[in-house]
Amino acid sequence: MLSEDTLIARYLAPIAGAGALGLLDDAAVLSPPAGHDLVLTKDALVAGVHFFADDPPASIARKALRVNLSDLAAKGAVPAGFLLALALPKGIDEAWIAPFAAALGEDARAYGCPLLGGDTVRAAGGLTLSITALGYCPTGCMVLRTTGQPGHVLAVTGTIGDAALGLQLRLNPDAAWARMLSDKSRRVLADRYLHPRPRNALALAIRAHAGAAMDVSDGLLGDAVKLAASAIRFGIAIAPRIDLGAIPLSAAAREALSLEPALIDTIATGGDDYEVLMAVAPDRLAGLTLACAALGCAVTRIGDLGGGQTPVFTALDGSPARFGQLKFEHEWQR
Amino acid sequence: MLSEDTLIARYLAPIAGAGALGLLDDAAVLSPPAGHDLVLTKDALVAGVHFFADDPPASIARKALRVNLSDLAAKGAVPAGFLLALALPKGIDEAWIAPFAAALGEDARAYGCPLLGGDTVRAAGGLTLSITALGYCPTGCMVLRTTGQPGHVLAVTGTIGDAALGLQLRLNPDAAWARMLSDKSRRVLADRYLHPRPRNALALAIRAHAGAAMDVSDGLLGDAVKLAASAIRFGIAIAPRIDLGAIPLSAAAREALSLEPALIDTIATGGDDYEVLMAVAPDRLAGLTLACAALGCAVTRIGDLGGGQTPVFTALDGSPARFGQLKFEHEWQR
Repeated sequence: MLSEDTLIARYLAPIAGAGALGLLDDAAVLSPPAGHDLVLTKDALVAGVHFFADDPPASIARKALRVNLSDLAAKGAVPAGFLLALALPKGIDEAWIAPFAAALGEDARAYGCPLLGGDTVRAAGGLTLSITALGYCPTGCMVLRTTGQPGHVLAVTGTIGDAALGLQLRLNPDAAWARMLSDKSRRVLADRYLHPRPRNALALAIRAHAGAAMDVSDGLLGDAVKLAASAIRFGIAIAPRIDLGAIPLSAAAREALSLEPALIDTIATGGDDYEVLMAVAPDRLAGLTLACAALGCAVTRIGDLGGGQTPVFTALDGSPARFGQLKFEHEWQR
Repeated sequence: MLSEDTLIARYLAPIAGAGALGLLDDAAVLSPPAGHDLVLTKDALVAGVHFFADDPPASIARKALRVNLSDLAAKGAVPAGFLLALALPKGIDEAWIAPFAAALGEDARAYGCPLLGGDTVRAAGGLTLSITALGYCPTGCMVLRTTGQPGHVLAVTGTIGDAALGLQLRLNPDAAWARMLSDKSRRVLADRYLHPRPRNALALAIRAHAGAAMDVSDGLLGDAVKLAASAIRFGIAIAPRIDLGAIPLSAAAREALSLEPALIDTIATGGDDYEVLMAVAPDRLAGLTLACAALGCAVTRIGDLGGGQTPVFTALDGSPARFGQLKFEHEWQR
C-alpha cells in the first residue's frame, strides 16, 4: 500500500510549482501581480458520472485539469495554478498513480498551470477528484456570463458535439450509426470525449472582443439558454436564437450525422464540448474571428440574442426545432 | 429530487459573497489587496473517514469549513473566501441540505470567509466534500512550517486531545472510562470532535511571533515530528523534545486521563485537534503568550526543538515515552 507521504513525495511534489513550497506545508502561497484580479473555478469529477472508472489514469488526470482550465479560458483569464483533492479507492496503486501524475504534470507544464497543493484522502466509493484552478485577469476585465445583450451575435469556438458523440460510442457501440462509422471518425470522437481541449490559447482574444462568455460543458443549447437567462437586466428577458444548421461540426461529426440524422439532438444538447460560447457585439465579431483564426481556431456565428422569453431553435430544414431536455445533466441527475 | 439549479439558487447563493457573482457564472473573481500574498489550502472530507455519515449536516458543514480555516490560521492568514465541491449521494434531500447550508453560511459570516463558488455533483459512494480556502497575508509574511530552528520553543494553543477522546467515545462507548466519565465531560469531548474551533482569531499574533507553525490535525507528536523534519537546513537534522506532562489538557480530558492513564497515547497522537503548533524563538514566547491571552486563548510551552535525528518524548513519570504510531492516519489508511 502506497503511503500518502510517498505518493506526495514521489509523484506530486515533482510536478508542483514554486508556490507549492514542495508540498511540505499546510498551504500554498501565490503573489498575484499588481493590477490583476484572481479568477477562481472549481470542478469536481466522479468515476461513473464524469468519466469511466476504467479510463486510462492519464486521461482522467487530463480531463480533470482541462475542464477547469476551460472555465479560465472562457473568463479570459491566464492560468496561475491549481489545487487537487484526490479521493482514492482502495485498489489504486502506483501503477495507476504514476501515469496519472505524469499526465497531470505534462498538462500543468503545457498550460502553464502548476500544481500548488491539495489533499489526498481515502474515497468512500469510487474515485473522486476536485480541482480548484486559479487564473489572473487585469482588474475588472474578467469576461462574465451575465453581460450578454439583445443584438449580440452568438458565436462558438471549434466544433460542437464531438465529445457527446464519443460518449454515445462508448455507451451504445452497437447502434447502427456506430457500427457504420469509419475507424478514423470513431477514434476522433472517442478522443474528444476523453481529452477536452480547453481554449486557453484564446483567452486574450476572448477578453478583448467577447461581450459575455462561458464554456460549453452541459450542452450547447442549454448553455446558450443559461447565458441568455443570466443576462436579464431591468426586467428585460433575453433568449437565444440558434440555427442548428450553423453549428460547426467536425468531419467525424458530419459523418455520424449523415448516418443518423437524429444525432443532431446529441450534438446540440450533449455535454463535454469545452468550447467557448460567446455573446459578441456585431462590430466585434470580425476582430474576434481574426484573432482566433491567427491562433488556429475557427469561430462560428450560430445565432444571436433576441428579446423575449422563448429560445428559438431553427432545425436544418428551416422548421422550428424542439428539445425535450436541453441540458446534459451528468453533473447531477444522470 | 432537488435539482442542482434549485440547490444553488435556494441554498448556496444566499450564503455567497460578492466575488461569487451570485453563483451565476463559471468562475468567481477576487481582487487581492495590494501588497498581499494569497494563501491557499484545500482539505477534503469523506463520510466514514473524516466524519460519520449520520453526523448532523450542520456539523459536517462546520467541520469541512473549519478544518480549512484552521490551515489559514496557522499560516497567519486572514480568510478571503472559499470554494466548495460537494459530491452528494442519492439519498440526500432538502431536509439535509437546508441545515447544511444554513450552518455553512453562519460559519462563513462568523469567520469572515464567504462562499465564492464551487461545484455540486453526484457522489460515487458516500458524501464527499472538498473545500479550497483562500486567505491573505502581507507579501512574504505567510508563517511557514519549514522555518523551525534548534533552540526554538515548541508551544501549542488551547488544549490537546479532546477531539480524539470524543472520537473514542463514539467508537468505544462501552470502554470502562467512557462509562465512568461525567455527562458534562462526555458532552464537551463529543462536541470537540464534531466542531473544531480553528484559531483564526490568533492569526495576527501567530504571524507576529511564531518562527514556524502548522495546525495540529494528525496528532500532536506526529505533527511535531513533521514540523521538525521539514525544517532540515544545510543537512542539520532537527527533532522535537516534548514533555507529555506539559501538554495542555481540558478538564474533560483530565477527567478521562484520571480514569484511564493509557489515554495519554490517544491525547498525544490522536488527531482532529485543530490547535496551532508553533516553533517560537525563546525571546518571542512572552509576546506570543500575552497576545493570545488577550484574545482569550492560552499558549502552552510543551518542549523545544533540539539538534539530532531522534524525537525525545518524556512520559508523565519522567521516563522516555515510546509510541507505536505517531500519526493519526484517518487521512489515508484507516
